Amino acid sequence: MAGRSSRREANERSADALRRADPVLVGVESAGDALPGMTQETVLTAGPPLDWDEYEQGQANAIVGGALYEGLAESRAEVVEKVRAGDIEVATCHEYGCVGSMAGVTTASMPVFVVEDRASGAVGRCHFYEGHSRHRLNYGTYNEAVHEQLDFVRDVVAAVVGRAIEVHGEVELRPIVRDALRMGDELHSRNNAATALLTRELFPAILRLARAGDVSQTKIDETLAHLRECDYFFLRPAMAASKAAADAAHGVEGSSVVTAMSFNCREFGIRVSGLGDRWFRAPMPTIEGKYFEGFSEDDAEYMGGDSVVNATVGLGGLAQAAAFPLVEYQGGSPRDLIERNEAMYDITVGRHDEYEIPYFEFRGTPLGIDVEAVVEEGTTPVMNMGIPGKQGGQIGAGFLEAPMACFEAAYDALDA
Amino acid sequence: MAGRSSRREANERSADALRRADPVLVGVESAGDALPGMTQETVLTAGPPLDWDEYEQGQANAIVGGALYEGLAESRAEVVEKVRAGDIEVATCHEYGCVGSMAGVTTASMPVFVVEDRASGAVGRCHFYEGHSRHRLNYGTYNEAVHEQLDFVRDVVAAVVGRAIEVHGEVELRPIVRDALRMGDELHSRNNAATALLTRELFPAILRLARAGDVSQTKIDETLAHLRECDYFFLRPAMAASKAAADAAHGVEGSSVVTAMSFNCREFGIRVSGLGDRWFRAPMPTIEGKYFEGFSEDDAEYMGGDSVVNATVGLGGLAQAAAFPLVEYQGGSPRDLIERNEAMYDITVGRHDEYEIPYFEFRGTPLGIDVEAVVEEGTTPVMNMGIPGKQGGQIGAGFLEAPMACFEAAYDALDA
Repeated sequence: MAGRSSRREANERSADALRRADPVLVGVESAGDALPGMTQETVLTAGPPLDWDEYEQGQANAIVGGALYEGLAESRAEVVEKVRAGDIEVATCHEYGCVGSMAGVTTASMPVFVVEDRASGAVGRCHFYEGHSRHRLNYGTYNEAVHEQLDFVRDVVAAVVGRAIEVHGEVELRPIVRDALRMGDELHSRNNAATALLTRELFPAILRLARAGDVSQTKIDETLAHLRECDYFFLRPAMAASKAAADAAHGVEGSSVVTAMSFNCREFGIRVSGLGDRWFRAPMPTIEGKYFEGFSEDDAEYMGGDSVVNATVGLGGLAQAAAFPLVEYQGGSPRDLIERNEAMYDITVGRHDEYEIPYFEFRGTPLGIDVEAVVEEGTTPVMNMGIPGKQGGQIGAGFLEAPMACFEAAYDALDA
Repeated sequence: MAGRSSRREANERSADALRRADPVLVGVESAGDALPGMTQETVLTAGPPLDWDEYEQGQANAIVGGALYEGLAESRAEVVEKVRAGDIEVATCHEYGCVGSMAGVTTASMPVFVVEDRASGAVGRCHFYEGHSRHRLNYGTYNEAVHEQLDFVRDVVAAVVGRAIEVHGEVELRPIVRDALRMGDELHSRNNAATALLTRELFPAILRLARAGDVSQTKIDETLAHLRECDYFFLRPAMAASKAAADAAHGVEGSSVVTAMSFNCREFGIRVSGLGDRWFRAPMPTIEGKYFEGFSEDDAEYMGGDSVVNATVGLGGLAQAAAFPLVEYQGGSPRDLIERNEAMYDITVGRHDEYEIPYFEFRGTPLGIDVEAVVEEGTTPVMNMGIPGKQGGQIGAGFLEAPMACFEAAYDALDA
């Protein structure tokens, strides 16, 4: 194992990259244009990579749905055949410089937010929120309504928001995240304030578009209605920002700081700054939460998720004491949020200097999850998330503790 | 003293009026048009009424400034002469169905928000926030810059917002207040979320105005910039809403519920639902707070304030545990906010059914301050507020405990 002092120095460098990250939303592009190496025949999905046959249930359905949406095949059987023949490539978001929520399916024509970390130059991308229907592609459902909604998000919402960003110029996300943490968001399962603040930031640009007359009134009106309905909208630019920050913290020799957390339908995985691109994996733990009317934990299943990238950089579960309103969404009590959040300071290297938690008297958010501290303290990172159901669709929301086994595996690798 | 059960019933009726209040922002009008009995020569100010000679320092300066702004005289001496001669009438906001922040000076040409309580039909009005300069008429300063800013607020901000409300139709404030309490506002010293939500609510209407071309682009752009800069903007429609609700709770025979709290430069005063229009007064207590750089408590002075109408109906100090970010503005700790807020449940009749405090596991805000409970518990209502300075201008922010003597006086009157 590296000497304590060199480890500490390396970890400080990783934490510092997270602290200094200065994400700006530079635009909206199609995944095909935005993602290095992305092809028309690529279907990206969340989580550490699996062999095709290992994808199951909702995540498999979402991958198939993405291929059908993109017009790569006309039936499920044809998708499967082409995947086996190598005519459709199934790969993971993280391999392509992006992240995807839940199943995370991203195909070439889908729009992505492009966020650059001005401090490091790292770039993260993330697809758009589909809307407030319980049934969405990223929750494992694909049908005509989902297809139409994906078209609407691409052709209306992403088109207008993309043009608005062009007119506005780069949108600084750091002030929005800072303010949102004072307004009940933790930037994972609660994004209400951040969404309203981003909308307000873009409004003058939208007004200019309307005056110029080069975007249809209907599209603008529908986009404003969408932004208003979708309190989750900001999650996606936040994830793109987190991906950029996490990548900036990656690759520091000797660092035991976690730079990726993610899961697929089977396993939770982490990557560690000083340990290259290897995923350390463990079976998915149980989610605890609150189910929508008519659903119970028997109905839940995992179908992947990269959104925990926000927890990786100190938001979401690591900032949950900023978001007491979460209690009505995912159950538990404010005391639970406080205790879980406090425990995160024991397994992290430092604190953010601008992202602060009011209840903790403006203590900075915990920054840089340290594999050694996780194992030595016996405490793993906590994450908030929506709960997907076996029939597809969101059926609740809750929180998850990362499985210790992947940290132990990384701990051993650091030791080697 | 009324029998306990008839008192309880009367108090329930008052609390119920507060609970059922359903405020809608119906429009913006000039005070001259909106306030029953208002004349061109009337200057309204905050607090229980005083004789002219009793107004001093900042509050007197603001009254004189209001008369000069309105063009009722050309010099301070002439204002004073005309007031003594009865050619200018100085009266209080509460007497004219409105409320004013700090000095609260309102003259005929100034714009006011008009808010109707749909449940009771009661109407409240309140002037506009002047902007983020430390020097404002309502903080006792009148000069050319203040004059120009008042013109700007009337001719640009109020004009555009008023037209936007016409296009939008009545704006429901209850959902905004409910959501803002989940987003770090207590709706007195913190209004960031409510302001952003109101702005978002008005966007589509502002967009329609821009398209119709009947409001100048410059005015629209300047209004949007103002709404974005002024996190306090929503305080004023909230005050108008609280005034309507408090008036709806007033006049219940036998009720010991407080239906007005307000202060002038000398005294704090309350009115009680079952005790008519009489003010029960006591000398102003000391404010505790945090001063802007370069100021201390030696620089503070009172110049009146009706904004505590929000505390009267269960917001502001009575909802401060919803607003931990206040700590950085007014000092203290989250624990202070929680303890002060908890104590308010001991002196109130009921709880709101929709305005809730997340940290208290969504307990409704305390509703209906009961004079008997205040005296018997030995606890008076707490309020948050800005701190005005002797040279005019805001010099800090803090909190105030209402003086017990006015509650004791009301207690005795209930007994009589």
